[in-house]
Amino acid sequence: MEKYYVGIDLGGTSVKMGLFSDRGELKEKWSIPTDTSDRGSHIIDDIVAAVEKKSEEVQGTIIGLGMGVPGPVSEEGLVHECPNLGWSEVAVRDLIKDKTGIARVAVGNDANVAALGEMWKGGGRGFDSIVMITLGTGVGGGVILGGKILSGANGGAGEVGHILVNPDETQVCGCGKKGCLEQYASATGVVRLAKKYQKPESVLAQKDKINCRVVFDAAKEEDPYALEVVDQFAKYLGRALGTIAQVVNPEAFVIGGGVSNAGDIIMDNVVPYFKESVIAPLRDTKFAFAQLGNDAGIYGAVRLVL
Amino acid sequence: MEKYYVGIDLGGTSVKMGLFSDRGELKEKWSIPTDTSDRGSHIIDDIVAAVEKKSEEVQGTIIGLGMGVPGPVSEEGLVHECPNLGWSEVAVRDLIKDKTGIARVAVGNDANVAALGEMWKGGGRGFDSIVMITLGTGVGGGVILGGKILSGANGGAGEVGHILVNPDETQVCGCGKKGCLEQYASATGVVRLAKKYQKPESVLAQKDKINCRVVFDAAKEEDPYALEVVDQFAKYLGRALGTIAQVVNPEAFVIGGGVSNAGDIIMDNVVPYFKESVIAPLRDTKFAFAQLGNDAGIYGAVRLVL
Repeated sequence: MEKYYVGIDLGGTSVKMGLFSDRGELKEKWSIPTDTSDRGSHIIDDIVAAVEKKSEEVQGTIIGLGMGVPGPVSEEGLVHECPNLGWSEVAVRDLIKDKTGIARVAVGNDANVAALGEMWKGGGRGFDSIVMITLGTGVGGGVILGGKILSGANGGAGEVGHILVNPDETQVCGCGKKGCLEQYASATGVVRLAKKYQKPESVLAQKDKINCRVVFDAAKEEDPYALEVVDQFAKYLGRALGTIAQVVNPEAFVIGGGVSNAGDIIMDNVVPYFKESVIAPLRDTKFAFAQLGNDAGIYGAVRLVL
Repeated sequence: MEKYYVGIDLGGTSVKMGLFSDRGELKEKWSIPTDTSDRGSHIIDDIVAAVEKKSEEVQGTIIGLGMGVPGPVSEEGLVHECPNLGWSEVAVRDLIKDKTGIARVAVGNDANVAALGEMWKGGGRGFDSIVMITLGTGVGGGVILGGKILSGANGGAGEVGHILVNPDETQVCGCGKKGCLEQYASATGVVRLAKKYQKPESVLAQKDKINCRVVFDAAKEEDPYALEVVDQFAKYLGRALGTIAQVVNPEAFVIGGGVSNAGDIIMDNVVPYFKESVIAPLRDTKFAFAQLGNDAGIYGAVRLVL
């Protein structure tokens, strides 16, 4: 019987799943909805059923299962709280192990697991230590050192979206603090800045609906207000990456998430601010874009058990 | 024959040495001057001679030797550049191994090695991951994760003294950048702030020579200008520690160096700024003072090989 691995990226709306060969090739991917009713008490059973169904379908044995979950996870695969799923304390790893009988089960925080995936098969390939920054609706991060996820004492390592970058900020971040990186470098943050800097004469004011892409497109057309937004974005992000480098000195930063689709304009603006904020030996830190998109999570999850 | 370990803290003016039992007890310590003439080419031979002399004196066998050096060190014990010693490329570990015949030799960066010492026998005892901050003439740092030193890709991990904390600073730091933590949180930085904030009516203006201790003593007597200096010091340090926590999430911060001798006034002012700058799960990060003083380096050096 063929041997397989399963990688799972558990999100608040859907559970992405990937079937991998024992050489780590993605054979097939599919997803099921996340049922957050009854405090998320059906989620584990739904996942177990989906895995068993797939196992029968391919007539193979699943010998390892890895999963990323959207919250802090202990080394023992215990989730303390995960509001997106309705979970309070859930022993994810033990439950999945018991219910599936799969010997090798590992669970990690989703941002960290995605970072591991990018290092294994994406933009971080060839490096041994990376910090991945995901610029999406929020700003997430994952720190991989010596090939291993750094979770931190409270599962809070890599929470780079909430680094304080502007003590003078007056608006409140989703986390309750003020002046977090996420308020400038997320898609939401870029739009917030655009609304702040737009003037009637700016291209930005002519658009019915400003989104992150509109702003970066306007900047590429040299709209001065959009350029100002991009400069603010780049300044806070570049300096925050500089600080991160002075703490963990990774070989490379891998930048992903929807905002990074703007392409070279990101690196062209962020890297100079990075370089001027760090000591000389760190100025050659590499920068790469993430390559796996939404699949980073399933790749990283499998990497946890491969 | 009794078995011993030697821990060495190689500095720009003296080489501190410690003889340890094989159970890790410090039996004796001594020091020799650092001969930086001829591009530091006598340093290794001087150290080897001192170790051999001690070995004969105690009629024992030295089975392990660890050393901290004031610069970045590769995993192979290679120093690329160390201006304080006059060194360019020096294969420290291999040289010492060859010249002494000691089987276990390990070399690390001095700040990292001191952090390891504090975790082993000092203020970081009982923790598995700490970040040590040394507030001396400059500001140094050491990151220990899972009991191991984090060196970083270029030996630049833990270079927290040069985290950018104030982009509006006009004075230049020793490193060539502007607005580094060291410009506010080192002994030199505190004096610099004191000169900036002192007024004729302040206690600070009445002292012939302002030093760091004078400033903290004046603050304890509630001199408003000294309190302002302490507040600036605490704000930049507390927020920088907050950022560090959001990257590596250590169990504890260990604060050492001359400035930390001011005592509780440091924690009382720094910790509130730390707490308000981090997300909730990180607010209970522990804070402790370093306890080994100048011996942290020899303890940590021995820990490298024990």
